[in-house]
Amino acid sequence: MKVKVFVTTKAGVLDPQGAAVEQAVHTMGYSSVEQVRIGKYMEFNIIADNREQAAAQVEQMCEKLLANPVVEDYRYELEE
Amino acid sequence: MKVKVFVTTKAGVLDPQGAAVEQAVHTMGYSSVEQVRIGKYMEFNIIADNREQAAAQVEQMCEKLLANPVVEDYRYELEE
Repeated sequence: MKVKVFVTTKAGVLDPQGAAVEQAVHTMGYSSVEQVRIGKYMEFNIIADNREQAAAQVEQMCEKLLANPVVEDYRYELEE
Repeated sequence: MKVKVFVTTKAGVLDPQGAAVEQAVHTMGYSSVEQVRIGKYMEFNIIADNREQAAAQVEQMCEKLLANPVVEDYRYELEE
């Protein structure tokens, strides 16, 4: 099963990377770009008996390692 | 319009971050995880007259700034 994980900073948490990219694209002339948020994107394969087991494992990995629950949110997609 | 950009290392390009995460999740007991690839995930809003104009601007930003065309691939999604 293919897993895609998206980790983004929680709303309200300062995103200096996002602010820097926003400034850079404005400088390049794309002044209509707003609210740039930068996060992590992860792809991997996982072997599991069913979707529920895969989901449980992915959530555990996110909670323990892939996302920092204090300042980051995560969501994931499972593809058969 | 909301834009989501996904930047990943090209196939065949070494992904040390991915390898490190793969080893870490194996150590945590998730031995069935394979082929971990880590990339960047970006969200932002853009004002454009239509989808084509938005797509053209996003592609220019990706080519010039958001992705390194030598070692990275990018794809994006536009949401009205």
